Amino acid sequence: MILCDIGNSTYHFFIKGKHKKYFLDEKLPKFDEEIYYVSVNKSATKELKKVNPQAKNIKKLMNFKTSYVGLGIDRAIASYFEKDSVIVDAGSAITVDIMSKGKHQGGFILPGFRAFMKTYPKISKKLKFDFEKNINLDKIPLQTKDAITYAMMKSIILPIKEVSENKKIIFTGGDGKLLSKYFENSTYKKDLIFENMKRIIDANDCIA
Amino acid sequence: MILCDIGNSTYHFFIKGKHKKYFLDEKLPKFDEEIYYVSVNKSATKELKKVNPQAKNIKKLMNFKTSYVGLGIDRAIASYFEKDSVIVDAGSAITVDIMSKGKHQGGFILPGFRAFMKTYPKISKKLKFDFEKNINLDKIPLQTKDAITYAMMKSIILPIKEVSENKKIIFTGGDGKLLSKYFENSTYKKDLIFENMKRIIDANDCIA
Repeated sequence: MILCDIGNSTYHFFIKGKHKKYFLDEKLPKFDEEIYYVSVNKSATKELKKVNPQAKNIKKLMNFKTSYVGLGIDRAIASYFEKDSVIVDAGSAITVDIMSKGKHQGGFILPGFRAFMKTYPKISKKLKFDFEKNINLDKIPLQTKDAITYAMMKSIILPIKEVSENKKIIFTGGDGKLLSKYFENSTYKKDLIFENMKRIIDANDCIA
Repeated sequence: MILCDIGNSTYHFFIKGKHKKYFLDEKLPKFDEEIYYVSVNKSATKELKKVNPQAKNIKKLMNFKTSYVGLGIDRAIASYFEKDSVIVDAGSAITVDIMSKGKHQGGFILPGFRAFMKTYPKISKKLKFDFEKNINLDKIPLQTKDAITYAMMKSIILPIKEVSENKKIIFTGGDGKLLSKYFENSTYKKDLIFENMKRIIDANDCIA
């Protein structure tokens, strides 16, 4: 079985534990196997199904209740099996979702690291700096480079801290690992989306 | 006496209690009066002095000690007379400076409201929304529009809250008034820069 996460810039395949990415304008291979996909991109989904008509939308196997209007299906998958946690997917945007007693409470969307850093030089050329990974967040910055990195890190960390209280926090996404270091009660799960897709499919097989 | 704040996009004059702005490519008037300016823009300063050679840099009257390397002169003026405060200038960027016992402790730089909002639609078209002024920040958002505004407001408010502890907070700049509403121990001073320029000039007259 092949899993595929269709995003705004890539097809992300998960094939026998291995990752394979294709840009949206690349030619997709034809697979013989079963494919389950999750997608936030309609036109890309159409393209996948043209080459691989057997591909199935995992959405149809899901039963995720929330009062949130228009929740991204990737956020639903990431939160699917959590009871009392904060789920953070740190990619081009950083989505933060809160689960309490197995119920989705809502969430919020921060700009991703890259988007944040791109913002500064547009305000003023003097604010163009590279990201400083090893900044001390317990000290008030004494130069502009640190003043930017500190602000960016605090802007991302503090809103997550505020909603997490005593909950555990699960990080995924490209910047999830870096971010998880700033939180005590946290876990980084690189393949959270694919792992949960697999669990959803397995659970469905049992019922069938 | 005329005061002028030269920024990245305008000349901002303060003439007998009235504000007058010129874009950088506009023709500047010739004034007969004394002019003091503060500037973060070298080429614009040159232009002002070409038309008004009598214009004086307020920097020469200032004695602001800090360990911060490359502190913007506007931030130094805003913080100049404070003993134990946090000074927030909320414009295209939001600068936050901390004064303790009359000493500048450093500071940080957040993106301004406008810069923040511009970031989202660049990540995904689905994240394009107008700013929702009346959002309840005590409730976890249940729709994407609120999820963005909530994240943006928390990203700006929480880092300022964290450094302000029991200090009073002084807001200035175009978005300072809106922002000050979220802080109990805060004051909004629309003309903080010009008021402090005036005080610096007056203090200097006394010494002379």
